[in-house]
Amino acid sequence: MLIHSASQLLTLKGGPQRGAALGTLGLIENGAVVVRDEKIVAVGTTAELKNAYPDEPTLDAGHCVLMPGFVDPHTHLIWAGDRADEFEMKMSGVPYLDILAAGGGIISTVRATRKASMETLIAQTRPRLLRMFSHGTTTAEAKTGYGLQTSTELRLLKALLALDDESPLDLAITFLGAHAIAPEYKDNPQGYTDEVVNTMLPMLKEWWETHAPRLPLPFVDVFCEHKAFTLEQSRQILTKAGSLGFPLKIHADEFENLGGASLAAELGAASADHLVRTSDADIQALAKSDTVAVALPCTPFGLAERDYTPANKILAAGGMLALATDCNPGTSWNESMQFAIALACRYMRLTPAQAIAAATINSAHAIRRSDLIGSIEVGKQADMLILSVQDYRQVGYRYGTNLVKQVIKRGQVYSVDVGYYRTA
Amino acid sequence: MLIHSASQLLTLKGGPQRGAALGTLGLIENGAVVVRDEKIVAVGTTAELKNAYPDEPTLDAGHCVLMPGFVDPHTHLIWAGDRADEFEMKMSGVPYLDILAAGGGIISTVRATRKASMETLIAQTRPRLLRMFSHGTTTAEAKTGYGLQTSTELRLLKALLALDDESPLDLAITFLGAHAIAPEYKDNPQGYTDEVVNTMLPMLKEWWETHAPRLPLPFVDVFCEHKAFTLEQSRQILTKAGSLGFPLKIHADEFENLGGASLAAELGAASADHLVRTSDADIQALAKSDTVAVALPCTPFGLAERDYTPANKILAAGGMLALATDCNPGTSWNESMQFAIALACRYMRLTPAQAIAAATINSAHAIRRSDLIGSIEVGKQADMLILSVQDYRQVGYRYGTNLVKQVIKRGQVYSVDVGYYRTA
Repeated sequence: MLIHSASQLLTLKGGPQRGAALGTLGLIENGAVVVRDEKIVAVGTTAELKNAYPDEPTLDAGHCVLMPGFVDPHTHLIWAGDRADEFEMKMSGVPYLDILAAGGGIISTVRATRKASMETLIAQTRPRLLRMFSHGTTTAEAKTGYGLQTSTELRLLKALLALDDESPLDLAITFLGAHAIAPEYKDNPQGYTDEVVNTMLPMLKEWWETHAPRLPLPFVDVFCEHKAFTLEQSRQILTKAGSLGFPLKIHADEFENLGGASLAAELGAASADHLVRTSDADIQALAKSDTVAVALPCTPFGLAERDYTPANKILAAGGMLALATDCNPGTSWNESMQFAIALACRYMRLTPAQAIAAATINSAHAIRRSDLIGSIEVGKQADMLILSVQDYRQVGYRYGTNLVKQVIKRGQVYSVDVGYYRTA
Repeated sequence: MLIHSASQLLTLKGGPQRGAALGTLGLIENGAVVVRDEKIVAVGTTAELKNAYPDEPTLDAGHCVLMPGFVDPHTHLIWAGDRADEFEMKMSGVPYLDILAAGGGIISTVRATRKASMETLIAQTRPRLLRMFSHGTTTAEAKTGYGLQTSTELRLLKALLALDDESPLDLAITFLGAHAIAPEYKDNPQGYTDEVVNTMLPMLKEWWETHAPRLPLPFVDVFCEHKAFTLEQSRQILTKAGSLGFPLKIHADEFENLGGASLAAELGAASADHLVRTSDADIQALAKSDTVAVALPCTPFGLAERDYTPANKILAAGGMLALATDCNPGTSWNESMQFAIALACRYMRLTPAQAIAAATINSAHAIRRSDLIGSIEVGKQADMLILSVQDYRQVGYRYGTNLVKQVIKRGQVYSVDVGYYRTA
């Protein structure tokens, strides 16, 4: 298939973009791409490729933008229930501690998730996947973490594997048993840490090799934060996970600076995520590493907070910056990477070009798939978007609605419906 | 038609909601509505109405929320071109005065709009109307104001009348010849004010009575702000408009407090809009009047500013608060009232119930149509939404995507597409 007549073809070629290089779009005007067997086999101008592939079936991009599919490298995709009641309380001015005392917060989602069958979990998560995909996310990371006990965490993994199978969107699965201290260990956080290290991680390895033998091992992630896991506990968990061969991720410095970003760099984690309160020293450590700094601007937005990840400091230090939605029921129920970009432009002061690179090639690297996805280059998987606009800068500039017209996933074209129709 | 089995039917009955009354949803569980000939003829529970109307054709709301269509009472719907380049400059840190010096700002949209034919204006505006409608706006106010000269302003009016005719969405049209000082009068703002007062307004009246004799007169609006129209010039324009019989609106206190809100109250304007810098005295004046305070949270968001309309002060004073998108190419290109609600919850500290009332019955009053639309009551126009969620608090809590499943406009059902489909 020859996709032609893109007003702007954003190739994002050349691999992950570090520091000042962020925003290198590799833009081709009147661009075209040839796709065969799920892969990209040629990239150029419409004139060049029409000439080189005269008999190829065509898809007209209609003078709109053609770009790589978004890669969302941080989502808590799977949970049961919602926390709309808690949101209402917060907006009414009820203090967070009172909400916690009333049974709110992450533990309320853990309660609902533990009770939910695999069928319920899949049925409630499916519409979120559909929203992600129709908003242009072609690959998403998806974490467990609302189980906090082996049986539920394994059910979440199983449900994620099933969703990955049934959905055109690809999932990169992460085990986040260390999302919070399990309620059973409320007064003994080290006890739960030991449980994760000594029981859950070895069991995870065995389970995965039995249930998903053809897939690479999932990521192991930990929430390194005051009232979750200390830096030392995070080190214990990630060190054990690394020794078992799991690739690593960390939630660091969302509310307080505990040093999690430096730990991620030291241990060679794929990414360190949140980074709102990260110190200059941590930023330097990250910048010297291959660990991607994943900013989650929807989270402060969801919480109506004022401070966002200091993107320009990270870039000035030479770091690799990516964007994600952090889609979750507590702080940020938003499936759209376009909205993460709109926030990143305004509150992290990225240009649309920088934000787009952070949401494609760099976010692919944050899940260690930048050799396969995140750019439009010969040999890569044909994961692309045709937008309904002619200028890529409309992404970020406009917000609140969906600018994707067609999603191309592994070479298959999906039309996204943006209109309405009159019914009988 | 009997629409039944709504998990929550939000009636919003009882007219515009003032002060502490804001957020009175008139919620009926397992609700139902009977619609005939574009009008609502019965409202009750599913059991009641199934019993009373046993032979009525049915539409199953599928245990989702049924609520009034959104009314968006402040949009600059019609313009040509875009300002994506300017957005990129702003996000790159270019100072606003340099952008203006480079030909940016509102005048760049005026240039593009003056050059555009009526066909171009309609073609570029139509997709915005479609986005509004598919996101649940069943009636929108739409302002002229990118002409700033009689010929273009009249072309904009004509295009808006044509769009109102062709679209299922109803428009409430506003003449905003006083949107900015026309470039021809750059050094003579009073000269342009005199032109509006002495030439444009009388001509508008004659034109409207010839071209739209069956419609009520449009609103007349003015941008009362530093570098636009002074308080005195705003008074001249609105007083003349009022004397010609036009209903009035005002843009007041977006960036500086000039007293425009009190002027609106004094002159009996339908609404005073923006109100970010409004003084306590102005808030008191508004609260004692029938002028609706229209907050436009997308505008500070679009500009990445920190300050929003002080909603709780307005409510504490007993004012009537409404929400709008302010959809425009410079500061806020967003068509979705759902996103305005998400912002209003977070940055104006409204509850979802308050924000929904502000976006339906109160915004209907801001365009003086609260006797016809904005609530689900017997005798009102059948403008309603079926959401894809079971709890109204999901609106506001979730953001960045579209929660509308079906739009019912004048009794006609439109299905909104939220999915994707695989193409050959």
